Amino acid sequence: MGGSISPIVRITLLALVALAAYVASPRAAELRGSGDLGIIVERATGRVQVIETTNRTRLATVEGLGDLSHASAVFSRDQRYAYVFGRDGGLTKVDVLDPKIVGRVIQGGNSIGGAISQDGKLVAVSNYKPGGVKVFNSDTLELVADIPAVDADGVRSKTVGLVDAPGQRFVFSLYDAGEIWIADFSAGSTPKITKFPGIGKLPYDALVTDDGRYYIAGLFGEDGMAMLDLWSPEKGVTRILDGYGKGEKKLPVYKMPHLEGWAKAGDHIYLPAIGRHELLIVDPSNWKEVGRIQVHGQPVFAVARPDGRQVWVNFAHPNNDTVQVIDVPSQKIIHQFAPGKAILHLEFTPRGEQVWISVRDVGKVEVYDTETFAKITELPADKPSGIFLSARAHRTGL
Amino acid sequence: MGGSISPIVRITLLALVALAAYVASPRAAELRGSGDLGIIVERATGRVQVIETTNRTRLATVEGLGDLSHASAVFSRDQRYAYVFGRDGGLTKVDVLDPKIVGRVIQGGNSIGGAISQDGKLVAVSNYKPGGVKVFNSDTLELVADIPAVDADGVRSKTVGLVDAPGQRFVFSLYDAGEIWIADFSAGSTPKITKFPGIGKLPYDALVTDDGRYYIAGLFGEDGMAMLDLWSPEKGVTRILDGYGKGEKKLPVYKMPHLEGWAKAGDHIYLPAIGRHELLIVDPSNWKEVGRIQVHGQPVFAVARPDGRQVWVNFAHPNNDTVQVIDVPSQKIIHQFAPGKAILHLEFTPRGEQVWISVRDVGKVEVYDTETFAKITELPADKPSGIFLSARAHRTGL
Repeated sequence: MGGSISPIVRITLLALVALAAYVASPRAAELRGSGDLGIIVERATGRVQVIETTNRTRLATVEGLGDLSHASAVFSRDQRYAYVFGRDGGLTKVDVLDPKIVGRVIQGGNSIGGAISQDGKLVAVSNYKPGGVKVFNSDTLELVADIPAVDADGVRSKTVGLVDAPGQRFVFSLYDAGEIWIADFSAGSTPKITKFPGIGKLPYDALVTDDGRYYIAGLFGEDGMAMLDLWSPEKGVTRILDGYGKGEKKLPVYKMPHLEGWAKAGDHIYLPAIGRHELLIVDPSNWKEVGRIQVHGQPVFAVARPDGRQVWVNFAHPNNDTVQVIDVPSQKIIHQFAPGKAILHLEFTPRGEQVWISVRDVGKVEVYDTETFAKITELPADKPSGIFLSARAHRTGL
Repeated sequence: MGGSISPIVRITLLALVALAAYVASPRAAELRGSGDLGIIVERATGRVQVIETTNRTRLATVEGLGDLSHASAVFSRDQRYAYVFGRDGGLTKVDVLDPKIVGRVIQGGNSIGGAISQDGKLVAVSNYKPGGVKVFNSDTLELVADIPAVDADGVRSKTVGLVDAPGQRFVFSLYDAGEIWIADFSAGSTPKITKFPGIGKLPYDALVTDDGRYYIAGLFGEDGMAMLDLWSPEKGVTRILDGYGKGEKKLPVYKMPHLEGWAKAGDHIYLPAIGRHELLIVDPSNWKEVGRIQVHGQPVFAVARPDGRQVWVNFAHPNNDTVQVIDVPSQKIIHQFAPGKAILHLEFTPRGEQVWISVRDVGKVEVYDTETFAKITELPADKPSGIFLSARAHRTGL
């Protein structure tokens, strides 16, 4: 019968097939703003959920991200792409609008966190093994710079506490060597490295204040912290909070606190006291301790609600089923609740009306109203850990 | 020849026509993130440009917004929609992803600015005539609440200095009555109104600090400002900066400064001194003046770069062709340039690497690198005034 079809019919049919194929191809994902999107890391399954915070629903899941224990993420400046840093050294670029993996490289053997440059063009990853920082083109994931963390004695360190800072800089700490390094990419893809040796023993994590000015590294091997003023790096690193009592009782440390979960609230900064059931209250005008708050366990994250009126705290094992809320003006705990075992992360919406909390062992993420403390909703999730909202794209030092 | 076409060919052709029509129909707008979008107001033509800050290009123009002199805008929490407040009382909802007007109401006769609630569901507009605030559903633009600004003597005031604050509140000032009102929508669409009378004469504009805590109204009829601590409204309104010298020389005031362009930088707040060629430097821990900086003219906007290291200032006529940049640590003017007549607005990208400046009389918007002060690009624009980036969606008090 094929031979009996006229040329015009043949062409028409071919055109029809081509058009049908075009129409049947996966339609572009729904047109929508990306300002209210986020991801939830499902750590055991190498998967992220894409969620939105307006109606608080799951939009999609994306698989194939590798080992996501201790994973974190940053977002592109258009809030379309999440860069997910896995423990296995994987750097995965996820399209959250048209949910799929659009790039993935295994860039190290064991990595811990990353950051995105001020202009959004560079993504940096902090590696335990091989110790150092690698920097990638955020479009293509091509390697732009490799910064091995080798000190003056030739010893290679794990790198920790990697943050971005204004002026196209990344700042990080060398765990084994006890150094802070600044990598300045303002002149292009070859960074200018400034090294601060001798900052103290075993920096384990760091924070930068939200203006990008003060970089503070927690020291596991000392009873204090190391502070670098990035507006005046020539002044060097200063020891602060010396003798805050980390070692007083030699408490076992169940989990290292996260300094990235630091809280600037009102006039003070609230820091988890390593090993102790306390938050330290610090005056950032002189970096002195001005008080302590007794809390339910060893704090892991102490996160300020975006308006700074409350600080929300979660805890290490065996107290990791509980969240406490501190009222900043009175410095009192005004609310406590226990959503379930293994509360791993808290993430506020950017204007602070909601908080999203991952409860790993119960397999869900709960969303609370931060004013009434009422539970708004919960979403099922497979061993959820980190929650990262796309509005992070616009913040410094994450 | 038509009669000779077989049924199968006819069906095929019909299907082809249908498919072609489908394919030729206006495609959905390009799928893209909305995190790097913004609008430029073209005041004389009732038009906005939609721009993006990654490659710094114009994506589209949207017409039909009415009188846009002194227009401002806020963004939906998903960063898809801009709500544009026109001087003619028009409230226009613009889709910046699929560029077009999706809603428009004439809600008053003469209006001045607006705000969006913490949860993104309410848009409030401040009206000179009839004096008061109207609140709309952000989805539908249906009226939710009408708050006439009538004082205890029955006098109706212009409203100014409208801002959002945490706890689903709007705060604004009554110009004629000299009052500050809080409208609290946390219980639903009927607001609880709290009134603070007797705050001083002729509040002309206001700011709220970026944590949403302190609301400060400038007073045209007094030599000072009125401050309300929204964490403790029961303490009432306090007069601050009394006698800062507004009236010393009785300088003519060419243009009222915008307090919404206030600058928190480092440990201080920089405020335009009304009528004077000065910025006031204020210590927010006690609200005392701690210094002044002499500037090129009467300041209109004094805006902090997002990291707080610089304050950029523009000026009233006849000095409105110049921009000055103040270095915060040294409090010195470190850069000055003159892009052209009638510099009306400055907008930083959220992480501060770029600043966009509208130069009305030259008909362009210029983009500068804030670290090197080099001009990166310029875009033509028809009498540009306000520039509003979608990342404003996540900030309090705009």
